[in-house]
Amino acid sequence: MVKLVVGLDLGGTKIATCVMNEDGEILKKVTLSTLAHEGPDAVIGRIIESIYDVIRLANINKEDILAIGVGVPGPLDSEKGLIKNPPNLPGWVEVPLRDILYKEFKVPLAIENDANAAALGENIYGSGKGIKNFMYITISTGIGGGVVVNGKLLKGASGNAAEIGHTTINFEGPLCGCGNRGCWEAYASGTALARFAREGIKNGIKTIIKDIVDREGHIKAEHVFTAAKQGDKFAKELVDMEGFYLGVGLANMANSFNPNCIAIGGGITNQWDMFYEHMISIMQERALKANVEGLKVVKATLGPDVGVIGAATLAWRLVQ
Amino acid sequence: MVKLVVGLDLGGTKIATCVMNEDGEILKKVTLSTLAHEGPDAVIGRIIESIYDVIRLANINKEDILAIGVGVPGPLDSEKGLIKNPPNLPGWVEVPLRDILYKEFKVPLAIENDANAAALGENIYGSGKGIKNFMYITISTGIGGGVVVNGKLLKGASGNAAEIGHTTINFEGPLCGCGNRGCWEAYASGTALARFAREGIKNGIKTIIKDIVDREGHIKAEHVFTAAKQGDKFAKELVDMEGFYLGVGLANMANSFNPNCIAIGGGITNQWDMFYEHMISIMQERALKANVEGLKVVKATLGPDVGVIGAATLAWRLVQ
Repeated sequence: MVKLVVGLDLGGTKIATCVMNEDGEILKKVTLSTLAHEGPDAVIGRIIESIYDVIRLANINKEDILAIGVGVPGPLDSEKGLIKNPPNLPGWVEVPLRDILYKEFKVPLAIENDANAAALGENIYGSGKGIKNFMYITISTGIGGGVVVNGKLLKGASGNAAEIGHTTINFEGPLCGCGNRGCWEAYASGTALARFAREGIKNGIKTIIKDIVDREGHIKAEHVFTAAKQGDKFAKELVDMEGFYLGVGLANMANSFNPNCIAIGGGITNQWDMFYEHMISIMQERALKANVEGLKVVKATLGPDVGVIGAATLAWRLVQ
Repeated sequence: MVKLVVGLDLGGTKIATCVMNEDGEILKKVTLSTLAHEGPDAVIGRIIESIYDVIRLANINKEDILAIGVGVPGPLDSEKGLIKNPPNLPGWVEVPLRDILYKEFKVPLAIENDANAAALGENIYGSGKGIKNFMYITISTGIGGGVVVNGKLLKGASGNAAEIGHTTINFEGPLCGCGNRGCWEAYASGTALARFAREGIKNGIKTIIKDIVDREGHIKAEHVFTAAKQGDKFAKELVDMEGFYLGVGLANMANSFNPNCIAIGGGITNQWDMFYEHMISIMQERALKANVEGLKVVKATLGPDVGVIGAATLAWRLVQ
């Protein structure tokens, strides 16, 4: 009998679910909209539905599934299988997702922070294969991460280790969504880059980003990169600062976790060549020499599937 | 036959060496001056001498020693047993200390960062007993730390994990000894506190710290605490800032490592009541709620012996 698990990545906008075999191959994947505004009961209904959908698509029975792994937005309590109160899942307060899914599927279940699950996935199947001290960082609307040491996830007391987007890089810095000031995320996420652009335009800086905004109605990080590629001075300064802020944060990661390899995923990697060199030179300049001399910083390789692959990897950990 | 190991803590000013039994009891301890300015050969001679001294004092033979653990100032390469180039050991460049000691003693040897070794010691015998996700932080002239997860040290790629004193808390901050700007150590170490006092006096601030300086010829962190206890306004402000900077750093530690318990050791703990409450309130305010809600921050309990106890614990790990 072929052995299979389910991996599910619960996001604020999408639920992605896959069936994976022992070779790490995704047999089938389904994606549906979270419609988070409808609240936990509706979303949990869709989570269960998506698991049945993918099982049906894979032409297997519920009984063929050995385990289910779920990646969720933090904060959570992974020991208890609780989702606490993620900012992008309104109405979720201490939801016992593991128990709810266990009632339905009666198989071993693991629930972890999505970036931690992704780190495990990249370590086993992606950019971190065979790497003993591995770190994955995702940079898109926010910044998240995970650390895997000797194949084991660094979970911390409640599964909330490596909440690196919310480490302070300037205690007097801008307010972050988490309530703290000067978080790495408040400087170097895509959201932050768009905010810096918006602030500049508000302050009357001449930039072609403004034309893009007038055309599209809003600023996204990618507009800044587009404008920089077209030679816009302000956009180029912003991209330069992005590289600096990324480098400052990477130096902290190197000094904190001393990884052999840091893999970066998320939307920002589409612009890799625009910031990579500056980011690395700032990291080298600011980190302790011994902590960066053997360190590789690479682009993550699993792409948009990293979430479900990571979640399925959690499931394999339960039964292998 | 009773089983014994040697633990040795190599510092910039002192070499402390002990014989420890399987119950974690120190049978004998010797301390001698490092005289680091005499260079590596002389210091290595004293390291070997101190091991023979403590063996003789314990009334045992070289052959009774099962293993030797050594805590050293970073940076190092613990896999290779190399000391790289610690700022407080002048002339040490890539010294293969493990191989040198192996030639002399022919037993298994472990060499780790001193704060990491101390973390392991506190986890097994001190404030961290039985704690699954434990962090030790030492705050004195510098700031160092170590993380122990499920009884295993988080070493990183080369034994330089948890170089937390050199994580940036303000990327525009004061220059640190490591070459970076705005390291936690440059804000919250005893050295930093003394520097802030010195700068204030230079800028003409009226403070009784100045009287202490005039009497003693130099400022130490403890003078600031003494002046604050006597009601000195500037000293009280400095102590207040110390609590703030400690809290900022602790929030980063909570968000990065999600420990169940952080134990603080080092000279600053003599002034615990002067900063504890402020430090904790700042940490609570700045860290993610899920990362601090179960977190205990306590005073480390092993005191000045933490270094040798940690080093001996490294040795036990090799043979148990």
